[in-house]
This record gives sequence, structure tokens and C-alpha cells, in this order.
Amino acid sequence: MATVAPSLEEPPPPLPSPDQGQPPTPCLGKVGFDCCAGRLRCLWHGLQRQANLTELPSQQAVGQTRLLQEAHHITEHVQVAAGQCFIEASEKARHYHVVASGRVKLYRSLPDGRRQITALLGAGDFIGLSAGENYNFNAEALGPVSLCRLGRGDMECLAQAIPLLARRLRQEACRELAHSQDRLVLLGRKTARERVSTFLLECLHAQDRTCPSPMHPVREWSMRPVDNLAGLMVTLWMPRTDIADYLGLTVETVSRTFSAFRQEGLISLQGACRVTFLQPRQLMELATGHQ
Amino acid sequence: MATVAPSLEEPPPPLPSPDQGQPPTPCLGKVGFDCCAGRLRCLWHGLQRQANLTELPSQQAVGQTRLLQEAHHITEHVQVAAGQCFIEASEKARHYHVVASGRVKLYRSLPDGRRQITALLGAGDFIGLSAGENYNFNAEALGPVSLCRLGRGDMECLAQAIPLLARRLRQEACRELAHSQDRLVLLGRKTARERVSTFLLECLHAQDRTCPSPMHPVREWSMRPVDNLAGLMVTLWMPRTDIADYLGLTVETVSRTFSAFRQEGLISLQGACRVTFLQPRQLMELATGHQ
Repeated sequence: MATVAPSLEEPPPPLPSPDQGQPPTPCLGKVGFDCCAGRLRCLWHGLQRQANLTELPSQQAVGQTRLLQEAHHITEHVQVAAGQCFIEASEKARHYHVVASGRVKLYRSLPDGRRQITALLGAGDFIGLSAGENYNFNAEALGPVSLCRLGRGDMECLAQAIPLLARRLRQEACRELAHSQDRLVLLGRKTARERVSTFLLECLHAQDRTCPSPMHPVREWSMRPVDNLAGLMVTLWMPRTDIADYLGLTVETVSRTFSAFRQEGLISLQGACRVTFLQPRQLMELATGHQ
Repeated sequence: MATVAPSLEEPPPPLPSPDQGQPPTPCLGKVGFDCCAGRLRCLWHGLQRQANLTELPSQQAVGQTRLLQEAHHITEHVQVAAGQCFIEASEKARHYHVVASGRVKLYRSLPDGRRQITALLGAGDFIGLSAGENYNFNAEALGPVSLCRLGRGDMECLAQAIPLLARRLRQEACRELAHSQDRLVLLGRKTARERVSTFLLECLHAQDRTCPSPMHPVREWSMRPVDNLAGLMVTLWMPRTDIADYLGLTVETVSRTFSAFRQEGLISLQGACRVTFLQPRQLMELATGHQ
């Protein structure tokens, strides 16, 4: 369904077998290293930088750098149109995806159509870490999305050969796990007002990482004080039905809560998808269960 | 707070530095390899078996086996009494734990005391994968518990030197992530009846892995047909208050739902914590949202 823009005319060169104590064999294809054209914030760029910075013995650093170039060559770049579902639950899980740009929602459905959005992803996020043999979720583009796509077998092979990549995949899974556990508390124990205020502050944090997140209320030195969020505007990525499916609420409750927040002077609304923060401290206290 | 039964009188020998293409240096301590006395289903045994079976070049296999022996020596064995909280949220995350025997609940609390149990763990499960610098959960023993405990720095060091371990940690994080996403659907979209029936079938699955799980309703060849669960009894690991905090319900709703199931002939109750399955197919249909 997704439009695949393959970066190779010919089939990709075979991957070297996993590192077994030998220096990895370079196996460069015909396509230049700049196949990402420097535009995509994709996995390999970050790892490449890390490999260059890490104090690895020089032979090993060169080997890992070459394998990362290799990874560039066998990475497909996929463009997905807004609203398109590019992974369906119970399909065979053949790929890992990394979001290069745009926003993606992952969701699961119950047989009668009830739906729960399990994650909202943005640039740099992985898709598919939790899949077993088959995908256990649907993935849909919330707007135009660019993805980097790599076969699971190839990724496993690379992860064995590139310890930096193996560690990055593990860190990513652990980070997602922590976030998922935050959301268990939200869905299991927070009120509708607490859920909606958490969501609004999460959107702001995703838009500007210097804004404190209610999920991690410990303030780092680089974070703005919460009162400084007054006057900031956030653009919501999705309609009320999706917000309801993300927060485990009905659409009516979501709309009612937005209206209540507006009437209480906590936020102002500009159309359906723009929200300005007026009383950010009160929203943060609500979101963290302090009110 | 937990009673530590250190397996070493002297400080553990230093870990070798991460594998950097050299064969790992063996660095055996004074304590015998059987420090687990074969009793604990702990991490190293499994990996050891895997290392022996894997077709690694012999020098590498020997290296990894020696490092695994090393890991045995620096693993502490901890006994925790029933009801004891052995990890507190916001403590510095210094250790990874693996449950050797017994059951553990992980939970988070909101400032006013509302509580959400985020995971129920048993033998072989990891604790601490999702922690950042500090633990983001409390861990409490549901009965007498044995744990294997290893410093996070030591574990990271071993994971770099032992690819099998690195992969196992990643698989574990991905498996927990998948389970956590299942629970998002439960908390966000399932009714009380659906949640309680899911919980009962989960308990049965944890007790006997040949019983199908509502979280993974695809039947594997080794699973019993659901009708064959009739007459099986499950012992619940925790009181109604904990079940409520796990399922995002009130205690009253949990008790009412148990009573309703009993009156409808779906289950019978033997005291507070024993449940016999009478109509397992109906419970499975409820749990998977087919009713």
C-alpha cells in the first residue's frame, strides 16, 4: 500500500555474516553513501556519528563504519500518504521501520471495532520492536510520513555485527517500555481531566523538548520552568476521535474536557486543533495527579 | 531492606573490559561455578546452555562460557520475604534483578495514593530494564521470593562482551513491551467483565503454559483446546485490592464481577483465592472481546 521509493536499481549486495571475532568484511554496493541525501534523520546517521566518536580500536571503528555504509545501501525509503495504514496487525512482520519524518499512530482493535492507540511516534522512533512473528498492531500515518525500512533478518544480522546498533535497539525497546508503563498508569488510574492535561503537555513536549513532560516531571537543567509555558501554542496531531482512542475515553468526554478547560481559563482554543496554554502550572499539577 | 545472601566473602574479581575483537580474558574468582547450586532458574544457566549449543567458533564459545562463569561469581542471591518492598521508585537504579523463584508485583503510585500495578513477574523475568537513572516503579514480593542481582555497570559490561546476553536482554525488553501494549488495550478499552476474565486466564497460563492465553489467542500446536480447561483450578497470587490495582478497577467492581461469574456458572470459587474454570470457552470469548 505504501509507495516504495527504492534506492537501488539492482538487488542489494549480500550482508556479511555476523561478526565472529573477525574484522567485518566490507561489502560496498554501487550506490553512494549519501543515498539519504542528508535529509532523513535516520538511524544510520546517528550511529555513524557515534561510531566516529567512540574510542574503538581503529580497525574496529573502520569495520563498523563500513557496515553502517552497507546498512545505508539496503535501507529502503518509503513515503506514506496521510491516513494510509502501512502495517496491518497479524501480517507477517518482515521489516523494522524508523520514522524519518512525520507522525505515526500505532493501534490495536478489538473484534467489535473498539480501538486503542498504543503509541504516537515521531522522527527517530522505531516501529516493530515488539512484534513477534507477526505484527501485533496497525500503523497509520497521521500526515505525510517518510520511513526508513529494513528487513528484520538484515537488521538482526547487522545488530550482531555492530554492537553499537545492538545497544541502540535495546535502549530503544527499554525507552518504549518505560513510556508504555507511564501510559498504563494513565489508563488505569488517571481521571479524564488528568488524561487530557497529560496529553496536552505531551504534545507540547513532543513539539519542543525544552518543555517539561508530565511523564517525567523531574526537571532537568535544560527544561523551561513550567510557568514559562504560558502563551505557548500547540498543534494537535489528530482529531478528537483519535485523542479519545489514545486516552481510553469517549469522544464526548474529550470534547467536554477541552470545553471545561477553556471555560476555566486553563487553555484557549484556536479552531479544532490549536491549543494555547494559559495556566500551565495548573495543567501540570492536574497531569501529575497533584490536584 | 531485602536480606542479601552474598555468594562471595571477598569482593568480586574485576570484570574484563568489553570485548573489542580480542578473545575475552578469563578471570575466574574463587567461588565454584555451582554457586547457584543448580536450584535457581537464573539467567546464566540458560545462556550457558545456549552458548554450548550455538555454533560459535570454538575459541569464542570457550571465551563466552568463561565470561558466563564469571557472571555467576558476581551475581548476588537475594531472598525477599513476602510483602517486602525491595525496590522503591526514584531510588538510584543500581541493579538488574532476575526473578529466580516466587512472584513479584511492580507498581507506581500517584501522589494521592492511587496505585497501578504495571507488571506481575515470575521466575525468569527481568526487573529494571525500563529504569533510567532512577527506578520508575516499586517492586514488592507477593510471597517469598529469590532474586539474582547484578550491578547495572557489570551487566552492561557483560552485555558488550557476550553477544548472546545482549540479544537476550533486547528480546526480554521487546517481550515486555509487547505485553505492556496488550495491557494498554485492556486498560483503555476492555469492560470490567473482559478485564477479570482476561486476568483469570492469564493466571492459568502463568501456572501452566499449555493453557492458551487471551493475550495471544492464536493457538499453537502445543496448546490445549480451550474446552479442555474446564475443571482446572487456578490459585490467585494476590488479594482483590491488588487485582483491582492491576486491572484499573475498584475492589468493589472486582468482587462484584467474581460473584457474577460464579452466579452465571462460569467459575466456582474455593475460598478467596482459588478459582475453578467451569465455562472456559465463554471466559475466553469474553477476554478476547468476542462477547
